[in-house]
Amino acid sequence: MNEERQTEISELGEFGLIERLTKEFPIRHPQTIKGVGDDAAVLSFGEKEVLVTTDLLLEGIHFDVRYVPLKHLGYKAAVVNFSDIYAMNGTPRQITVSIGLSSRFTVEHVEQIYAGIRLACEVYGVDMVGGDTSASVSGLVISITCIGDAAKENIVYRSGAKETDLICVSGDLGAAYMGLQLLERENRVAAGAGKDFTPDFSGKEYILERQLKPEARKDIVEELGKAGIVPTSMMDVSDGLSSELLHICKASGVGCRVYEDRIPIDYQTACMAEELNMNLVTAAMNGGEDYELLFTVPLADKDKIEKMKGVSMIGYVTKPELGAALVSRDGNEIPIRAQGWNAFSQKD
Amino acid sequence: MNEERQTEISELGEFGLIERLTKEFPIRHPQTIKGVGDDAAVLSFGEKEVLVTTDLLLEGIHFDVRYVPLKHLGYKAAVVNFSDIYAMNGTPRQITVSIGLSSRFTVEHVEQIYAGIRLACEVYGVDMVGGDTSASVSGLVISITCIGDAAKENIVYRSGAKETDLICVSGDLGAAYMGLQLLERENRVAAGAGKDFTPDFSGKEYILERQLKPEARKDIVEELGKAGIVPTSMMDVSDGLSSELLHICKASGVGCRVYEDRIPIDYQTACMAEELNMNLVTAAMNGGEDYELLFTVPLADKDKIEKMKGVSMIGYVTKPELGAALVSRDGNEIPIRAQGWNAFSQKD
Repeated sequence: MNEERQTEISELGEFGLIERLTKEFPIRHPQTIKGVGDDAAVLSFGEKEVLVTTDLLLEGIHFDVRYVPLKHLGYKAAVVNFSDIYAMNGTPRQITVSIGLSSRFTVEHVEQIYAGIRLACEVYGVDMVGGDTSASVSGLVISITCIGDAAKENIVYRSGAKETDLICVSGDLGAAYMGLQLLERENRVAAGAGKDFTPDFSGKEYILERQLKPEARKDIVEELGKAGIVPTSMMDVSDGLSSELLHICKASGVGCRVYEDRIPIDYQTACMAEELNMNLVTAAMNGGEDYELLFTVPLADKDKIEKMKGVSMIGYVTKPELGAALVSRDGNEIPIRAQGWNAFSQKD
Repeated sequence: MNEERQTEISELGEFGLIERLTKEFPIRHPQTIKGVGDDAAVLSFGEKEVLVTTDLLLEGIHFDVRYVPLKHLGYKAAVVNFSDIYAMNGTPRQITVSIGLSSRFTVEHVEQIYAGIRLACEVYGVDMVGGDTSASVSGLVISITCIGDAAKENIVYRSGAKETDLICVSGDLGAAYMGLQLLERENRVAAGAGKDFTPDFSGKEYILERQLKPEARKDIVEELGKAGIVPTSMMDVSDGLSSELLHICKASGVGCRVYEDRIPIDYQTACMAEELNMNLVTAAMNGGEDYELLFTVPLADKDKIEKMKGVSMIGYVTKPELGAALVSRDGNEIPIRAQGWNAFSQKD
């Protein structure tokens, strides 16, 4: 590796790096409708558009096998990719799975991972169509690519949000993050306590499940379809609500106002935040890994959205010059900054 | 990780592991024409079939950054995926690129990798449409998925070889493997010699380039198309000729005879083998990473194949009960065994 003037990756951050790396790739085929820059690429091969998304999960960065069961890990690795396809208002159809394994993993371990992937494929009706398996000198690597489809007129990008649109989010936020805090705490306690220690997860099942076995919101995409709603923009909440709101505002060239008291938070999430003396709104805004759908709809769809279960209206889209802000309970406007989880803040 | 009866991955080998892991995945969609088990999956979304293939490259297993320039690494990582699409008689159209980076890699390093990927996309006319970038605690990880297309009637599987078909291979074999031997030798010498050492690659440029910057045989696929030949079976030679011949024989339910004196070998490959006192035929049969196309055609296409530059007829397809064998120069039949490169023979 040659050593001229070098830039630390952390100087750019993940999104800065991606932007820098991908900006010089031209699109050559008319069938490539959308390349880098959304939840999935959009390809046109015939009647339907083809959606493609991919995720790389690395041991020590994205998961810790000390407290994530391998079957759950496989399930989650598949589901987070399905979530990206749903976030385009599409349907996931196929996945490829590549796995790198160090020698401390046995066949039975890998089978557990695949059992989780298989279950996810079963639940979401997806075919596993290929992949690659290799030894690894340094822990577990899982790379999944998901292919989906959608009718052209139904595909929802990040870029379609318009002034006065309502901002909606499915389910609740911050639970997966609090589940991770809980797992990490119990792991620390277990390390100090020796063999007889049994972690106490009672009354915290929901936040644990949100961390270990997240679901993609297939149901919401189906409900939107039934209600005849095509959102103007949509993303899944993987890095955190703040980060995703900024993505939509940037891609759509708009601003937004989101109300603190409208952000949906589960009771267990709130209890855990109090127990750990953490800021609840920060967890909900920046925690990430919720895999809920964040979307915008025209004001005219308000009545339809109100009738949908499990969807909260949390704010509205503004002119770009107003920026993106969170309106606190006392009416103050706090600028939204991306404090989403950044894999490059870690060091090896 | 739970510790019941465990099987070492090396007991199964890569293909055994893949078979075991993937056999229980059902195919649910009529649009999934072909899932696991060929160079690429085949999906039908409209007029053309969609092909998907993926490769995972791990530092310390598939490459060594001490002697592989990063730009070459990026180029190769893309090209080996294109090769899988050509091996289906298709055209690569899009790729997604996921990269995991440890903190010793700077932005400039990653840009070199992407410069290589970009060059490959340019040379082969492929769009880069997405990906994922992440920190890694343990070295460089590159996962590329390639999407291609082909008219349904042109797609060539591994499974169509018929008795009396001619077995053909493009280019020459064993050069990439000898290039790797050369790189490893020079690296060992350099490690002992200190700073002033300059490796001597003169007269060995071809085998080096075959290892560092392989090309996919787009030209052969185009020539076959022009000649009106649709092979009965085809694969790219990534693991080694022996391994690929066995794949085709197994998938097609046939045997084969391949003639030692027909195997195309470059002069530099032969010289290097002699210099290193290695068996040349073993290198050509089992070396791998040649990315040449191995294919079978009906006997009736013999004249057309003879007119094609850079294609050698190396043998013919037999009844299954005759097995797969190499016919040596002295007329002996040596059973072909897969001694292809097995990533799971390595340990961490």
